Amino acid sequence: MIPVNADRFLADLHHLRSIGAAGVGKGVVRPAYTEADIEARKWLAEQMRAAGLTPHFDPVGNLFGLTEGPSLLMGSHSDSQPEGGWLDGALGVIAALEVARASREAGGPPISVVSFEDEEGRFGVTTGSAIWSGNLALDKADTLSDHGGLTFAEARTAFADLAGDFVDPSRFTGFVEMHIEQGPTLDTSGEQIGVVTDIVGIRDMRITMEGQQNHAGTTPIHLRKDAFQALSAFSTAINDRFRNVVTPSTVWTIGHVSLHPNASSIVPGKVTFSMQWRDGEIDRLGRMEQIIRDTAEEIAKARGMTLSYGPMLGLDPVKMDETLRAALSKGAETVAPGNWRNMPSGALHDATNVSKLMPVAMLFVPSINGISHDFAEDTAEVDLVAGLKVLAHAAAQQ
Amino acid sequence: MIPVNADRFLADLHHLRSIGAAGVGKGVVRPAYTEADIEARKWLAEQMRAAGLTPHFDPVGNLFGLTEGPSLLMGSHSDSQPEGGWLDGALGVIAALEVARASREAGGPPISVVSFEDEEGRFGVTTGSAIWSGNLALDKADTLSDHGGLTFAEARTAFADLAGDFVDPSRFTGFVEMHIEQGPTLDTSGEQIGVVTDIVGIRDMRITMEGQQNHAGTTPIHLRKDAFQALSAFSTAINDRFRNVVTPSTVWTIGHVSLHPNASSIVPGKVTFSMQWRDGEIDRLGRMEQIIRDTAEEIAKARGMTLSYGPMLGLDPVKMDETLRAALSKGAETVAPGNWRNMPSGALHDATNVSKLMPVAMLFVPSINGISHDFAEDTAEVDLVAGLKVLAHAAAQQ
Repeated sequence: MIPVNADRFLADLHHLRSIGAAGVGKGVVRPAYTEADIEARKWLAEQMRAAGLTPHFDPVGNLFGLTEGPSLLMGSHSDSQPEGGWLDGALGVIAALEVARASREAGGPPISVVSFEDEEGRFGVTTGSAIWSGNLALDKADTLSDHGGLTFAEARTAFADLAGDFVDPSRFTGFVEMHIEQGPTLDTSGEQIGVVTDIVGIRDMRITMEGQQNHAGTTPIHLRKDAFQALSAFSTAINDRFRNVVTPSTVWTIGHVSLHPNASSIVPGKVTFSMQWRDGEIDRLGRMEQIIRDTAEEIAKARGMTLSYGPMLGLDPVKMDETLRAALSKGAETVAPGNWRNMPSGALHDATNVSKLMPVAMLFVPSINGISHDFAEDTAEVDLVAGLKVLAHAAAQQ
Repeated sequence: MIPVNADRFLADLHHLRSIGAAGVGKGVVRPAYTEADIEARKWLAEQMRAAGLTPHFDPVGNLFGLTEGPSLLMGSHSDSQPEGGWLDGALGVIAALEVARASREAGGPPISVVSFEDEEGRFGVTTGSAIWSGNLALDKADTLSDHGGLTFAEARTAFADLAGDFVDPSRFTGFVEMHIEQGPTLDTSGEQIGVVTDIVGIRDMRITMEGQQNHAGTTPIHLRKDAFQALSAFSTAINDRFRNVVTPSTVWTIGHVSLHPNASSIVPGKVTFSMQWRDGEIDRLGRMEQIIRDTAEEIAKARGMTLSYGPMLGLDPVKMDETLRAALSKGAETVAPGNWRNMPSGALHDATNVSKLMPVAMLFVPSINGISHDFAEDTAEVDLVAGLKVLAHAAAQQ
């Protein structure tokens, strides 16, 4: 095993937290391309150099710490949500730094480090790794803008004076990302480590149903074409019809609802809502889509309403590489015997994009109360160190 | 019968429409206290004077055309919605003017006329008649403001130079209001006249359910406290439980929904929605309220959510006066034999407030396609004239 230094790892993690510290608990405010994010990346680049790695910024701010010759790549992202936790992606970056540094000191295998930019999607979705992997073209990304109207092209000029070319992915033999779980599974079961089997696929679309806006006093119930009632009937029906199709880890969410005109005395004539569903099996995602479309059409027809769909966002599930995953499992069994599990990742990660370029694997540590993307996000120190050691075990097997 | 002049009535109705004409179909834009509303009221005052009535503005802009001595009061309101139809309340004001004028010419019974101010609720709900009837205190009304922040106290200065005292309601023997139906019942049945049996009561409240906001990828379905799912379950349950309680003319509406944080990738943690219900029987309104509260509590409890209620708006149902209603029914049977019906009013009207002061009754004429509060609002001319004649018949019986 690579002799990682837990104290040095924790000290670096707390130093990174201090850059953009929110002043509320351990929270951080370090969205992509903000001053805090830029300062954090410059500090990370120094730590990489001090560890004997060559820091390299690409044109969008992805920061690599490179060894000479082929290497295993480890890391995650150091940008945060507008109100973020201190661990999130930062944990995976600092853990990778410590493993690479300790391996170098001990004459172990070559490990390179990465902090991808804008994983939290100020502009796109996992923007930096999406561009690097070719999932998102740079010229298309440049036209995206944040909620304030700033374009990606403008934002990424923050790194213009530091930026070199995109890194050739063929220099890496694989990618391992450590991350907090961001859900309640490990915290509930009391286990220390999750070895990810696959990152679930996502389907997300907007559905619009249009009926007839009317006076809520003078329009009898049987003559209404009420958009809220249609939405409610749709949700009830799919909950029922999904039962024969889903597994306990399948999820679906109606998270956004926009009623028109949204007034208490008017029968709502129109609703637009989000329908998102996630699963590890591409076939199941397709069967769920069919149920959604059939049910929406049935309900719209029965109620005399028109139905339309926005564009569907689709990200296919990604299976973790068997060799890298076996190395993580072996490490988990050494560090936390009988106290770890295989599990899917319900959240998207940079590893989804990187899987287009090379073998990938991921490991999770628990999130206390399942909380993330919140100032209250935290993980017990003993679990952070356990995760670091599993990562070091897996690296040593390369 | 009082010999009303249909041509003069229609000419006045079209003249009133020209004041604030929207330029779209027959639509008008004449909200309370706007220039168009003030101009319309000054024109109405002239017509009243020409008809031998004494025009009188009260402190909030309610315009009366008074006879000497006791009289039956007829009328409605001449303000419109921000995008209104040409008939709405204007029809009842001009019909009352024609009946009063024709009765005076023919030596018939004394009829006074009224156009209440702000029935459409720029500031309150049926504001002008609510103040006159004592349902809304003037000093409280003065603190209300419109969407632009203008207070009622400021708005009503528009009539300061014209305003006299409030009119003593004891000079009137009763109130009869003619109005368009604003719903599809008469248009669907092909009948010309609706004689109103009662104005339904309204209950309206905001309900808030708060669960737990969470990541839509990492939070298993069985661990969620999803506010949208709670709302949908609530709506489904009350639709079912109301079946044994309601009549075909009972209505209930969830017209406003506000989800938080309302994002497709986040399990919604909180929902605030409007629950409004209307019925002619006060007991039924109460039974429905009990079902609503019981169901909301059951669902909140079963899902581990907190439940809270905003203040409840309550307006009790108003029965029409039997004598005045009989006079309208007799008129309807004379003018449109076998082609009229008794029906409740699902909408609120000034008559609701006036019922606190004196006996009231109402009659409806059809709304084409049930449309109102819209530039497309209209009624066939033959039905407008039929309504005028029924009003004249009822007035002649006093």
